[in-house]
Amino acid sequence: MESLGKSPSSSDLKYLTWLVLLAQAFGLSAVVLVAVWMGHFQNGFSWQSNPDLEFNYHPLFMIIGMIFLYSDAILAYRVFRNDKKIYVKLLHTGMHVCALLFAAVGLKAVFDSHNLPAKPKPNLSTLHSWVGLIAVVLYGLQWLGGFFCFLFPKAGMATRIMMMPHHQFWGMAIFGFSVAAALMGITEKAILSISKPVSYFGKPPEGLVANFLGLMILGLATTVIYILSRPEYKRPPSPDEEHLQLQEN
Amino acid sequence: MESLGKSPSSSDLKYLTWLVLLAQAFGLSAVVLVAVWMGHFQNGFSWQSNPDLEFNYHPLFMIIGMIFLYSDAILAYRVFRNDKKIYVKLLHTGMHVCALLFAAVGLKAVFDSHNLPAKPKPNLSTLHSWVGLIAVVLYGLQWLGGFFCFLFPKAGMATRIMMMPHHQFWGMAIFGFSVAAALMGITEKAILSISKPVSYFGKPPEGLVANFLGLMILGLATTVIYILSRPEYKRPPSPDEEHLQLQEN
Repeated sequence: MESLGKSPSSSDLKYLTWLVLLAQAFGLSAVVLVAVWMGHFQNGFSWQSNPDLEFNYHPLFMIIGMIFLYSDAILAYRVFRNDKKIYVKLLHTGMHVCALLFAAVGLKAVFDSHNLPAKPKPNLSTLHSWVGLIAVVLYGLQWLGGFFCFLFPKAGMATRIMMMPHHQFWGMAIFGFSVAAALMGITEKAILSISKPVSYFGKPPEGLVANFLGLMILGLATTVIYILSRPEYKRPPSPDEEHLQLQEN
Repeated sequence: MESLGKSPSSSDLKYLTWLVLLAQAFGLSAVVLVAVWMGHFQNGFSWQSNPDLEFNYHPLFMIIGMIFLYSDAILAYRVFRNDKKIYVKLLHTGMHVCALLFAAVGLKAVFDSHNLPAKPKPNLSTLHSWVGLIAVVLYGLQWLGGFFCFLFPKAGMATRIMMMPHHQFWGMAIFGFSVAAALMGITEKAILSISKPVSYFGKPPEGLVANFLGLMILGLATTVIYILSRPEYKRPPSPDEEHLQLQEN
């Protein structure tokens, strides 16, 4: 605990702990609410034998991958601030591997649910689908750029220092696009699918679940971006990094 | 022009000019697209005599106020970086007065359009309406806090220095909430109202207008937040402010 008190005061870091816990509470609540919405109100899950129920994996897996795991991958550098950087980097990468896998299966689910029925539904008509696709394509590019530049084969120090602010900005922007896509997806699904006992506009319990799901995602995004905005929460360079003057954290 | 080259290099500031112009292009395109959508495809505007057409002022005025004028009010400190601070502050305030007026009339329009018909529609059912209301309430609080703290009667220097990062963070967060509300509002309106020649899901021209409107808003938000994220674009303290060590810009 001694080392926590180094350059930011330890009361600053006490707030960080609470803010990270708040982010976890928002993120886990979002995952639980989308699981309840799809699992209970929307009749649960199935794979290609029932494309309507296969759809239900789409919101669940996209929120687990592109919202919850993605946000925790960002926070890894703030949380494990005193661990050796290569370990934190591998954790950051590992969480993004999981996020990418969930997102891939989540996308497969929605395309299947449009293409497999006897009367297929058009793909990529809505603003939700456009913004979601932009988020996923940029995420893929960010993944490749981040991997080659910072992990393997790894660019030279000068390039890494130059690229880091762009990696950080686009990491945050893609998170923002994912949040926007999620909120529009919730809106679409609620309008199209909520019917019992009344439509979404009549404020049924299912509609409240959908709305609170959206608020949890927005609360998570606000908390994460607040944490990123505070300079005192940045990971301090460890002694073996300091002589490199590398501001990679 | 001489004074532009001071501490950030003038090539840095050349990018700022282009980024601000890009933001204006996105913002103006959004205003034009929502005017075309409501004015042409959705049969134009009316006041209380026709609540359905009164609704059409809602997206137009909210986007002019909470998105376009709001974002330009934020950018004022970056654009007028060499003018006397009190003038920039009055411009920032003036643009927020206009933003607030547009938002107030825009809200009146949507509540009227729900309450005035023979068969009234329920208010505040959807995630769009919840997030929009949160954005507007927080905006009102931010307005009051900003006015009393920074303009009149104006808090002491120490309080102003302490409050500024919070004013900046919440200013950006409320902008983010407004963007999220706008994108969900576009999604709602497109699903509920587009029917000719086919529904929103069949990719009619009107649906493309709605989607491009959303992309312009997202492009504006990304550009504005990128500008805010660059430390070299911050307004440098002018000579008469420097001795105050006030980081208000």
